[in-house]
Amino acid sequence: MISFTRGVPANEAFPLDELLSCSESAIQNFGAKIFQYSSSFGFQPLRELLSEEYGVSPDQIILSHGALQILDFTSSCFLGEGSSALVELPTYDRAIQVLKRSKATVMGVPLEDDGIDLKALKEKTASFKPRLIYLIPDFQNPSGTTMSLKKREKVAELAREFDFLIVEDIPYRKLRFQGNELPQIRDFCPERTITLSSFSKLISPGLRVGFAFGPSEIISRIALQAEETYITPSLLPQALVFEFLKRGNLPGQIKKLHSLYFPRLEVMLDSLRENFSGMGDWIKPEGGFFVGLTLKKKVEAPLLLSRAKEAGVLLTDGRGFFADGGGDNFLRLPFCALKPEEIREGIGILARLIKEM
Amino acid sequence: MISFTRGVPANEAFPLDELLSCSESAIQNFGAKIFQYSSSFGFQPLRELLSEEYGVSPDQIILSHGALQILDFTSSCFLGEGSSALVELPTYDRAIQVLKRSKATVMGVPLEDDGIDLKALKEKTASFKPRLIYLIPDFQNPSGTTMSLKKREKVAELAREFDFLIVEDIPYRKLRFQGNELPQIRDFCPERTITLSSFSKLISPGLRVGFAFGPSEIISRIALQAEETYITPSLLPQALVFEFLKRGNLPGQIKKLHSLYFPRLEVMLDSLRENFSGMGDWIKPEGGFFVGLTLKKKVEAPLLLSRAKEAGVLLTDGRGFFADGGGDNFLRLPFCALKPEEIREGIGILARLIKEM
Repeated sequence: MISFTRGVPANEAFPLDELLSCSESAIQNFGAKIFQYSSSFGFQPLRELLSEEYGVSPDQIILSHGALQILDFTSSCFLGEGSSALVELPTYDRAIQVLKRSKATVMGVPLEDDGIDLKALKEKTASFKPRLIYLIPDFQNPSGTTMSLKKREKVAELAREFDFLIVEDIPYRKLRFQGNELPQIRDFCPERTITLSSFSKLISPGLRVGFAFGPSEIISRIALQAEETYITPSLLPQALVFEFLKRGNLPGQIKKLHSLYFPRLEVMLDSLRENFSGMGDWIKPEGGFFVGLTLKKKVEAPLLLSRAKEAGVLLTDGRGFFADGGGDNFLRLPFCALKPEEIREGIGILARLIKEM
Repeated sequence: MISFTRGVPANEAFPLDELLSCSESAIQNFGAKIFQYSSSFGFQPLRELLSEEYGVSPDQIILSHGALQILDFTSSCFLGEGSSALVELPTYDRAIQVLKRSKATVMGVPLEDDGIDLKALKEKTASFKPRLIYLIPDFQNPSGTTMSLKKREKVAELAREFDFLIVEDIPYRKLRFQGNELPQIRDFCPERTITLSSFSKLISPGLRVGFAFGPSEIISRIALQAEETYITPSLLPQALVFEFLKRGNLPGQIKKLHSLYFPRLEVMLDSLRENFSGMGDWIKPEGGFFVGLTLKKKVEAPLLLSRAKEAGVLLTDGRGFFADGGGDNFLRLPFCALKPEEIREGIGILARLIKEM
């Protein structure tokens, strides 16, 4: 089976020898500290390293078992029945689920090729007074879009004008294969931005080391939720990541990922051009894990999924990425964990199938 | 400071060399498997080992970051506004918080020396039709009480009669220093019992390896909550625990804990007899982490806590253990992480303080 389901790193991308050696150092250097209960903010030396990188104080940083769990705490702290939240249309399906679990109304704002539609965003914020907007500005999941500089500034302005929180999720930010890095949204509005990120796409998802930073009073509220949920996060993986960063291994690892993943993105884009020209729209991402494909033909997602499965291709239901309904004709195409020949074959199969539908 | 706050293992109890060696084996034996995304049920080989021990199938077991997080998922699945849950009076303060977070009404049923008051339990279940009862049958947190065999059977009977779920939390069960092990409540009612436990008190809390087992349809609902919260739990700590168990290290580790902790319990009980006779009531636990002390004198918890702190003794607010209010004159006294002389000194200080109040 060729799996175009989730945003999974390639197994061959894990630096196993280094992970083994960093795990040894973590236990040797920190001993009982990482085996005992500790603060719900997470492993202090890693918080300190991250605070240097992002120019915040350590008390503005919390570590957790992946960024999604921190979004869940954020959602519990700031949303609830009667409140509303905005997301991009489409956006990360699991984020929609987590936000909806708070019983808030979650509404979508359409994406353009350079990020969220500002006019629609302004209308929605004015009408619905959302408490929070969730955005993935770099190599967006699931579309691959990157938000322009101008839009980043404008979103920050709107947040101040309409008094909402920005949650920017940047797990793919360091996987830029082309073009220049843009400032984070938080750079324009640090006082009301929570930034989520993780080492899942850079080192390993199974370690579950995600983090958030933002205003310290917000991070403290999240940490209290964390304490009341699991007391202390799992510390050994956080200490392992600390050792990995302290040894200066991350730049080399990211370079390795670029040379593994960029050719796969190019194969994906080539295959789409060869097979889907005239049949769908997609943007050319400059990095990340996904290309989003919008079919011109109307299809029913359940039928498409079952036909694709029969033909040996697994898909995620496109409707999950659309907070307000729709999405039948949207396909998220992850490319990192697939070999070039699998990408070519899978896209070919999908194109044939869709033509026949 | 002498800390009688939380149920923390002794730092000297962590088998650091073995943990280092098991972490190496975990990475060498499982490689990419534990660094990739996986099922939200957790690390399969550990589920299989636990399934053999507890006589259930692997699909009846879920692993998570400590048992409290699984209680949180259980609470999200089965409780909510308008529903009610019962707990022992007193019980684990963090469990009360987690259950209340679901917006359910959480009510207490008094404890007797041999476990929950059956008459009161029957009345409460008949009047309030609770969906769930949370119990700690072995060396209860915070009282130290163990539920009698007869009461275990009766609770199971009531669960069937009044159609509620039993959540039994047994993290201290293997830390029995005296007396004979009793059957679990689940033995009398497997079809409606969720058992929570963890390796926090036996190997290390910082690893955050807790687990639950019960009917597979219930465990599947919990696993879906887990997936929607963190996708996959942190796998390296679970693989480490698997290696620790597979090597047969646990019995020796538990023996070591018995010889470290049992003398500390005896010093605690001696100190209470010497200092609190006539001033309070407590039971003599046969294992676990805590002795609960109920003062005869009426005191105000905030005043007691601040006086104790000035005198060099840290306490947890007794009111947190009582779901319905009260608890000012209740002290939870953990003994495992304190040296015998600290226990003697701390109890002496508390007795003098309380006499003066």
